[in-house]
Amino acid sequence: MNLIDLLGYFGAFLSAITFIPQVLQAWKTKSVGDLSIWMILIVITSTIVWLIYAVNVGSGPVLVANIIVLVLSLLLFYFKLTFKKPL
Amino acid sequence: MNLIDLLGYFGAFLSAITFIPQVLQAWKTKSVGDLSIWMILIVITSTIVWLIYAVNVGSGPVLVANIIVLVLSLLLFYFKLTFKKPL
Repeated sequence: MNLIDLLGYFGAFLSAITFIPQVLQAWKTKSVGDLSIWMILIVITSTIVWLIYAVNVGSGPVLVANIIVLVLSLLLFYFKLTFKKPL
Repeated sequence: MNLIDLLGYFGAFLSAITFIPQVLQAWKTKSVGDLSIWMILIVITSTIVWLIYAVNVGSGPVLVANIIVLVLSLLLFYFKLTFKKPL
């Protein structure tokens, strides 16, 4: 593995963990009013697109990163529905 | 361009616009208390890593998508500092 591959893995790792602090904060505060529901829906949609892409091009890192992001964004979506009454 | 490439571009497009609704909501409400500062910092760091990666592998879509995400996440960081007093 060369340095550029390593950089790609590091980027994928950071992208994967992006929503961990957000999920933890939302869980602790039970407050998600400032989170955009559209951001969450776009993240869910994009991870599904990336998952299909990853399976088709056979990219393990993209697959793993997006499974993690999908789980975290589904949690945020659930919090958004639970912690605040939907319109 | 085949269907898989197209899927990759669609994923990159969705990833690029992820934070647009969040920036708009933060700007309208001037309320960012529920946004995790760590999420924003991870996004900024990951986009910088992805930008270096994109330049080195010569990936236009990854470059463009991450420039957009970097600008949006820097805006959220600025909002976070401005709309709410930092600790």
